[in-house]
Amino acid sequence: MTIPLTVEFAAGGQGAWMIDRIVPVFGEALPPASRLAIGAAPLAPAGSIAWRLRGTVSNARYTHRSEMTELATRQEGLGRPGSRRAALIPIRKNAAWWALAQDERRAIFEEQSRHIRIGMDYLPAVARRLHHSRDLGEPFDFLTWFEFAPGEESRFDAMLGRLRETAEWRFVEREVEIRVNLDQ
Amino acid sequence: MTIPLTVEFAAGGQGAWMIDRIVPVFGEALPPASRLAIGAAPLAPAGSIAWRLRGTVSNARYTHRSEMTELATRQEGLGRPGSRRAALIPIRKNAAWWALAQDERRAIFEEQSRHIRIGMDYLPAVARRLHHSRDLGEPFDFLTWFEFAPGEESRFDAMLGRLRETAEWRFVEREVEIRVNLDQ
Repeated sequence: MTIPLTVEFAAGGQGAWMIDRIVPVFGEALPPASRLAIGAAPLAPAGSIAWRLRGTVSNARYTHRSEMTELATRQEGLGRPGSRRAALIPIRKNAAWWALAQDERRAIFEEQSRHIRIGMDYLPAVARRLHHSRDLGEPFDFLTWFEFAPGEESRFDAMLGRLRETAEWRFVEREVEIRVNLDQ
Repeated sequence: MTIPLTVEFAAGGQGAWMIDRIVPVFGEALPPASRLAIGAAPLAPAGSIAWRLRGTVSNARYTHRSEMTELATRQEGLGRPGSRRAALIPIRKNAAWWALAQDERRAIFEEQSRHIRIGMDYLPAVARRLHHSRDLGEPFDFLTWFEFAPGEESRFDAMLGRLRETAEWRFVEREVEIRVNLDQ
């Protein structure tokens, strides 16, 4: 994959992933839809699109070298045959977060909240790809895509619960959880 | 100004700024044009467009709190009546830069290269606004816009010379200098 790569998530009547549920965690939800398509933006126009979100796979913004090295040895890629469950989690942080300096955001993100460290606890079970949306004028700042086996779903839920209790999450003003599967 | 704000720079036959010269510093130049227009993207279509570049005014990526505070007390905004000279400097860094971790990029940027510190030496004479282009699929990663009085031009040139001698600049693979004025 050549980065930066802009990816589109399109919910509607078409797409490989069946949508189980769309849950508003903070703020407004997204409209209901039955399927989710993912591809290089812009996707071919599909019949009925309920919503589209775009984000760019880009460089790391907070991760230090020691963390990148550890992640590289432990994480696995998208598209594993056993990864028949997935989640798309769009997030928008508030203006206070974006007004912080880089060292302040890093300290909240990792030294206080252990965001990278918490994610490590679920490797390699949960594969992940982050897409940056803020600079594209999108309604969310980030779109994170997670893939895992059906048997890992309760651990994935536990990971989300731990992240949402952190200091970092006090800056989240909108979050939606879109849970999908390949099995229905 | 509400950020993120995507700004377009359009060179052609229209625009408030007269183009003095377009100098390729590293890599390929940009086509010649007589005037430069700047505005919220997308600009209205003008008669003859030689090239367009877009970038988003967004959050700080390397600047620490102590540096942001010092910058805020010393820098002045764009559009000062005396700022009748300006420069647009689009830059693209190489793949090795973008593969670095956040702490490695910050160390090269400031602890080794003193990028912020060098810029401080020219405040408030040189006003500056950075636009991020990499995630937009643009040919450059950054567009920096500088404004200054005619009498400050040689000091502005000296600042560019100091920056180009730094360790950070070894990662620059394309740089073009577009010098413009309001006086012709």
